[in-house]
Amino acid sequence: MNCSKHITDLRENIKQARNQGKKIILIPTMGFLHKGHLSMAEHARRQDNSRSKLYIVMSIFVNPLQFGPNEDYEKYPRDLAGDSKLAGEAGVDLLFTPSVHEMYPEGQNLTTVNISGITDELCGVRRPGHFQGVATVVNKLFNIVLPDFAYFGQKDYQQVTVLKQMAEDLNIPVEIIVFPTVREKDGLAMSSRNLYLSPQEREEAPVLFRSLQEGAALIAAGEKQPEIVREKIMQRIRNESNGKIEYVEVRKANNLAKLNTINCPVVIALAVEFGRTRLIDNVLVEV
Amino acid sequence: MNCSKHITDLRENIKQARNQGKKIILIPTMGFLHKGHLSMAEHARRQDNSRSKLYIVMSIFVNPLQFGPNEDYEKYPRDLAGDSKLAGEAGVDLLFTPSVHEMYPEGQNLTTVNISGITDELCGVRRPGHFQGVATVVNKLFNIVLPDFAYFGQKDYQQVTVLKQMAEDLNIPVEIIVFPTVREKDGLAMSSRNLYLSPQEREEAPVLFRSLQEGAALIAAGEKQPEIVREKIMQRIRNESNGKIEYVEVRKANNLAKLNTINCPVVIALAVEFGRTRLIDNVLVEV
Repeated sequence: MNCSKHITDLRENIKQARNQGKKIILIPTMGFLHKGHLSMAEHARRQDNSRSKLYIVMSIFVNPLQFGPNEDYEKYPRDLAGDSKLAGEAGVDLLFTPSVHEMYPEGQNLTTVNISGITDELCGVRRPGHFQGVATVVNKLFNIVLPDFAYFGQKDYQQVTVLKQMAEDLNIPVEIIVFPTVREKDGLAMSSRNLYLSPQEREEAPVLFRSLQEGAALIAAGEKQPEIVREKIMQRIRNESNGKIEYVEVRKANNLAKLNTINCPVVIALAVEFGRTRLIDNVLVEV
Repeated sequence: MNCSKHITDLRENIKQARNQGKKIILIPTMGFLHKGHLSMAEHARRQDNSRSKLYIVMSIFVNPLQFGPNEDYEKYPRDLAGDSKLAGEAGVDLLFTPSVHEMYPEGQNLTTVNISGITDELCGVRRPGHFQGVATVVNKLFNIVLPDFAYFGQKDYQQVTVLKQMAEDLNIPVEIIVFPTVREKDGLAMSSRNLYLSPQEREEAPVLFRSLQEGAALIAAGEKQPEIVREKIMQRIRNESNGKIEYVEVRKANNLAKLNTINCPVVIALAVEFGRTRLIDNVLVEV
């Protein structure tokens, strides 16, 4: 596996791969890799074990632009040595680990990409500027790597929806592919932030997926009112944990729009704080 | 010369040219072509008269996003048949003339590109949202065409500065090249909007370039104070025309920053209204 800290270097590697006729896959991450990240690389590698058709680029960059002033940018877990080993084993061809200065050189951070509407809701309410930061850095990564495909995890459902909107609106020639959330045995969605949980919080946290599943079952059984689904989920979280609910929402799956009656594919999404750790999760429900 | 109204079609043409090893040049315009536009295409063609190395794409799109509600979007002059003839004669390989719907399909206009700071000054004061509209549509064109080079005229100096900043900030793999303003014999900068001028306004308008030249001469003769240069220019415009001055500014040439002492290359830029027609112009001055 090749590693690049610098954009010029990275581009040179990618150019060579493209000249060999390979398609470029980008997997943007903030590192501290877990099975959620690695399963995407492994999936890509399985399509091309001989390394003749695909070139898998993974980026690891904790992007300061997407963290609010009181968020966990400083303490966000980092382990470049460990990540490097895991990425190599998963079949990544090129690991991009730029510094903050490489991504945002002095005087080179005046431009932002803004997606209106959907970025102000759900996670955007408590994290103003977050999706602007995500969209801007992913836009930069797309321009740096020029990937044919970009892989993202479904766990960050709103993020994926925002990025798909950006790619469509700005005619970015990339196909965005969303991978199912990878979970611990007890259902907790894998996340680098799970590390922050105390033993008791960790024990309580699987209530999120249980309650989402209950919501999905209600809808599958014919429930048409989002409010009733939301209430059931919130009740269960309150009953079975000390989690502080930030939101539980039932939205249209394709664009996160509100709906009065559940008559199309929906996503049930939530954010809950366990102590000082904010967790998100979601499930898709076909109707 | 090929013509495309559709993005898929355009991309196919460009892909073929790229596969033949040609470099792609993009010349974005709003049409109603004049020598300012055509000189850029002719320049490119002269580098490659045999059409073996370069592929020149010109876009013609009057972008609604960059016009304010009380501006001249509706009445902006359009002449696709004439433009098509001129572009072909100038050596353009591919003319891209998308409809508004092609560029902004329904539900596909939530994303904007914002460059902070420099977009709020000079022309941005009276045209809020203008540079956001320009940056967004040019970003889209860059993603659609993926040009190696993009050509712009110096007449829209602030626009070029904004777009260079965008390309740098977002790591867009394009080289932006700025061409000198092409002028009428009496010095008036060529512009599609000159058409709006009444005979008397047209007669008065060359005062803009005369006054800019006087300003440049002052600086060349050692004047260090921007205020004195500005005053001289404004005085002359007031003395020799009925033009209503919107701004006259002396700024750093590289980033349009304000300066107290002229000790680096500067641009003198102005906007003046003749009747209901707003004209802009600028000159660069080496120090």
